[in-house]
Amino acid sequence: MPVPIWLDCDPGHDDVIAIFLAAQRSDLIGISVVSGNAPLAFTERNGLTACQVAGLATPVHRGAAKPLVRPAQHAEYIHGESGLDGPAIPTLTRKASEVPAVRALLDAAEKHAGLWVVAVGPLTNVALALLLEPGLAQRLAGISVMGGTWGPGNVTAAAEFNVWADPEAAQVVLEAGANVVLAGLDLTHQFVMDRGRIAQIRALGTQTALFSADLLDYFAAAYARSYGGPAQGPLHDPCSVLAVTDPHLFASEPRHVAVECAGEFTRGMTVVDRRTGPRVLPPNATVLTNIDDEAAFQVLMDALGASL
Amino acid sequence: MPVPIWLDCDPGHDDVIAIFLAAQRSDLIGISVVSGNAPLAFTERNGLTACQVAGLATPVHRGAAKPLVRPAQHAEYIHGESGLDGPAIPTLTRKASEVPAVRALLDAAEKHAGLWVVAVGPLTNVALALLLEPGLAQRLAGISVMGGTWGPGNVTAAAEFNVWADPEAAQVVLEAGANVVLAGLDLTHQFVMDRGRIAQIRALGTQTALFSADLLDYFAAAYARSYGGPAQGPLHDPCSVLAVTDPHLFASEPRHVAVECAGEFTRGMTVVDRRTGPRVLPPNATVLTNIDDEAAFQVLMDALGASL
Amino acid sequence: MPVPIWLDCDPGHDDVIAIFLAAQRSDLIGISVVSGNAPLAFTERNGLTACQVAGLATPVHRGAAKPLVRPAQHAEYIHGESGLDGPAIPTLTRKASEVPAVRALLDAAEKHAGLWVVAVGPLTNVALALLLEPGLAQRLAGISVMGGTWGPGNVTAAAEFNVWADPEAAQVVLEAGANVVLAGLDLTHQFVMDRGRIAQIRALGTQTALFSADLLDYFAAAYARSYGGPAQGPLHDPCSVLAVTDPHLFASEPRHVAVECAGEFTRGMTVVDRRTGPRVLPPNATVLTNIDDEAAFQVLMDALGASL
Amino acid sequence: MPVPIWLDCDPGHDDVIAIFLAAQRSDLIGISVVSGNAPLAFTERNGLTACQVAGLATPVHRGAAKPLVRPAQHAEYIHGESGLDGPAIPTLTRKASEVPAVRALLDAAEKHAGLWVVAVGPLTNVALALLLEPGLAQRLAGISVMGGTWGPGNVTAAAEFNVWADPEAAQVVLEAGANVVLAGLDLTHQFVMDRGRIAQIRALGTQTALFSADLLDYFAAAYARSYGGPAQGPLHDPCSVLAVTDPHLFASEPRHVAVECAGEFTRGMTVVDRRTGPRVLPPNATVLTNIDDEAAFQVLMDALGASL
Repeated sequence: MPVPIWLDCDPGHDDVIAIFLAAQRSDLIGISVVSGNAPLAFTERNGLTACQVAGLATPVHRGAAKPLVRPAQHAEYIHGESGLDGPAIPTLTRKASEVPAVRALLDAAEKHAGLWVVAVGPLTNVALALLLEPGLAQRLAGISVMGGTWGPGNVTAAAEFNVWADPEAAQVVLEAGANVVLAGLDLTHQFVMDRGRIAQIRALGTQTALFSADLLDYFAAAYARSYGGPAQGPLHDPCSVLAVTDPHLFASEPRHVAVECAGEFTRGMTVVDRRTGPRVLPPNATVLTNIDDEAAFQVLMDALGASL
Repeated sequence: MPVPIWLDCDPGHDDVIAIFLAAQRSDLIGISVVSGNAPLAFTERNGLTACQVAGLATPVHRGAAKPLVRPAQHAEYIHGESGLDGPAIPTLTRKASEVPAVRALLDAAEKHAGLWVVAVGPLTNVALALLLEPGLAQRLAGISVMGGTWGPGNVTAAAEFNVWADPEAAQVVLEAGANVVLAGLDLTHQFVMDRGRIAQIRALGTQTALFSADLLDYFAAAYARSYGGPAQGPLHDPCSVLAVTDPHLFASEPRHVAVECAGEFTRGMTVVDRRTGPRVLPPNATVLTNIDDEAAFQVLMDALGASL
Repeated sequence: MPVPIWLDCDPGHDDVIAIFLAAQRSDLIGISVVSGNAPLAFTERNGLTACQVAGLATPVHRGAAKPLVRPAQHAEYIHGESGLDGPAIPTLTRKASEVPAVRALLDAAEKHAGLWVVAVGPLTNVALALLLEPGLAQRLAGISVMGGTWGPGNVTAAAEFNVWADPEAAQVVLEAGANVVLAGLDLTHQFVMDRGRIAQIRALGTQTALFSADLLDYFAAAYARSYGGPAQGPLHDPCSVLAVTDPHLFASEPRHVAVECAGEFTRGMTVVDRRTGPRVLPPNATVLTNIDDEAAFQVLMDALGASL
Repeated sequence: MPVPIWLDCDPGHDDVIAIFLAAQRSDLIGISVVSGNAPLAFTERNGLTACQVAGLATPVHRGAAKPLVRPAQHAEYIHGESGLDGPAIPTLTRKASEVPAVRALLDAAEKHAGLWVVAVGPLTNVALALLLEPGLAQRLAGISVMGGTWGPGNVTAAAEFNVWADPEAAQVVLEAGANVVLAGLDLTHQFVMDRGRIAQIRALGTQTALFSADLLDYFAAAYARSYGGPAQGPLHDPCSVLAVTDPHLFASEPRHVAVECAGEFTRGMTVVDRRTGPRVLPPNATVLTNIDDEAAFQVLMDALGASL
């Protein structure tokens, strides 16, 4: 029986593929969008686009237009101004739900026992839901977060975009007492789409596969431009879907993770306590350490092949 | 016609007197409570107690049990463990509303044109409402805040309790684009209840006056114990009610106010830009600078005299 | 008998007048210069210029070219690019000493019992001397510092230039256990040179008076340009000389002063603990609160009149 | 021809072995001590003890009793109260030099072309020398630092002791423009002394080997107690000697390293920019990444075998 999932995202290229994947591998209850890779108006439109391409009726709910405390920040150097540069975007035939994201998420959590929140953008919406309804932390089966790093960052030397963009929200999520599963850059950089894999995806020929391949062409080039190296890119957000739908693909460790909200060089960094011995802080998250890259790619291929 | 007021508070001695005052001088739509002077269970009970003593049917709504990001902090050195040490507390005959604070506040703002929020505790509830519904900032007539200081603090050398307890929430409120009126310690320390005034209040003989006098006896002694000087105490929270109901009692200045969330010695400080000239930051708040102490005391006396 | 003074400065307009004043009112042992109002090469040249105009043989020692930890910052909006814009600058006939500032200051402190350090620039040199020779704190009669504020700042809303430019150095000086006397902006803004006073100074007709009047013309205009208001400016640095030579001109309070090195809005702020009661931190400085403005101006007039 | 080395240290168990090693493998010009693993009085005594055990005439110079800005911190949980708990300590027959550390280091740098500073304690002394004499950065062949980490810390989740104890000093050293070589915990944890190696050292039978083995017995037990795992400990400080005397034992990378002085969870962390691509900050240090553990142990064995 598929796991019920609420997907909170800021589409974004890899977010769209995470939507395609969640639609096939889980019981996708709802989607909420947040400011992040692009401004809210764009992430809303891009979330709707993903649903339309995949033929999904899943409602898309509008969330926070900016982080809890700080001004909005975007990642146009990876995702372009639209948040979804690259593919030809179809004319939208559907609209976002009138129910705002936080209320919709709280309602879903009451209705669906064992709900997982998969959160792959800045954590503003999820933090607001937890702040409004502290009981949510225990009611959810867990929160699978794409965010953070214990190695190099992608925005600064120390910080990953989603946590850096709203560090206070990330800290709220980590301190809420929920079952948090964390896919940081250390993990997601093990799941990379290169030219060969993009070609394999394209060859599937489905609408979602073709759209994904177009997305990945742009994404891979943006990565090469921003970080050097060959034209290839890591599929961050789908990892957090797979961590819920296909947990056997991952190795993990319980760790204490704090979010630095105040540093000069470390603002937005996830401080993962990887020490050993009696001084180690008690774990508040399950940190994913390894993904079975080949098997995960096969799950993705199967999902895109089985989609519209 | 009395101004419609929503009172968000963390009772607390002076909060109770603010409730008595608001009940007489305004159209008091609702009360929400928050963790602050005492834990939420106590501030809820104390808010209900205030209503009962004054014979108010105003609903009391339960809000946040802790600040947005940080752990809860209380001020037992001023208010005692119960948050309302001193008077004999009557057995409660009423209960808090089932509608949570943030939702109730948002509903009230939609129903009541020209609503003022008077916020005299940590700003967690108000910040959450503004984050959930950014349009709220414009819909409200204003937010009258007791918090901050541009002189000495009362928790640290630089910080006042309400802002220090939830600095991120205070920053959200100041940055939301609302009409914020700020009563800092500079202002509230001009409105002091000494032995003579407490006796005058007691002599009024009403139920609220007697309860207020008992509260002030404890409060004045706690101030003397904590800050030295004679047994007297400033009526912080009533100032923020009066700023809405009797604005002619005040002088004020438009100022830019930022909240320091990251300092070592200044965390929770309100940084009021009091410079002159072209480098001054554009105002985001009306800072109250002076209160007509005698006239304000007369308004308070009249209100307590006219209450149950 | 005149007090022996070591003057550490970053000339700067008011620094030059502090040199003129110290030369008349104290036993001026030596001058050290530091990066501050202008880059070190300029403050060195300006210190030499001041000595030449006043006919002083006092050695000028070159100190730190940048703050302890942070990059150098200057105040060209007040002092111009040269640090001494305004007057015609004579061709220099003398040179800085070969002995570096810190060594020279340490030597002077050993030779001259009861030496006062008057420090009116960023505190880099003085902090280095204290760090190298912790016994210095006790050996000195005191350190009279122009720096900080407990009201509005002049660089940011909260910070004064000298402390803001090298906050770590200021913290070292305050924590060294020395007898620190602090003239913040609250004090120095009571000692203002307006058009009338500048004319009185010019009318003295001495070389130093004419040079001072030229300096003040520029300085007053720069103040008006930067902070609004009429063309007049506060004589910050001379206050710290007078605090040593003419202490009867001042009222003061013992206070704890900490320097915020980490805040977002408060970096470089002096946190003066002005609370009362048992929670107040133990004093580590004498904070000047009032200056007898008229009497101080008369001392200055006498000094400039008696100079070359 | 042996490299001239100035060894700045806070002995400390591994510091003593670093002294033994430097005495054999380099031209050891001088030793300076600093507050760190233990208070200055103890690190001074321990440095003298090391010289006495090894029969060295090298002068030992007293340096800073506390970090630049912060209060002193020690590591008694690893090194014991004395800083050198474990072995029987011989009665001292010699004394520290009268020349203070910073002056002695500056003099040595002028006299000895190609001098390396090997700094294996908090960087207070070295920072002060660089601040006093900015030309020092270029005059030295380099500064080989034991400090920092890009993995787990040993004091906090993110910070290593030497940098954490005086982060401002570490930042000064990294920003001075010198040729800095960094041995962080990532590197030093590759050079571990377990029971077998300690036995091999003891079997050498020399005075320094026996003393080292006694040191390592205590050190290994302290590590097991503090960090869990078997009784073994990493030889941090000798790595920074070897990096100068036997550089072929190491792999390294040029990196930008910043020191976080302001964070809540990251204070004292070395932020190593390990990103790739155009956003990477320009390198200011050579970060050691690998040590040839077996070969390094052989060098150590040879050195201890050839010592007194």
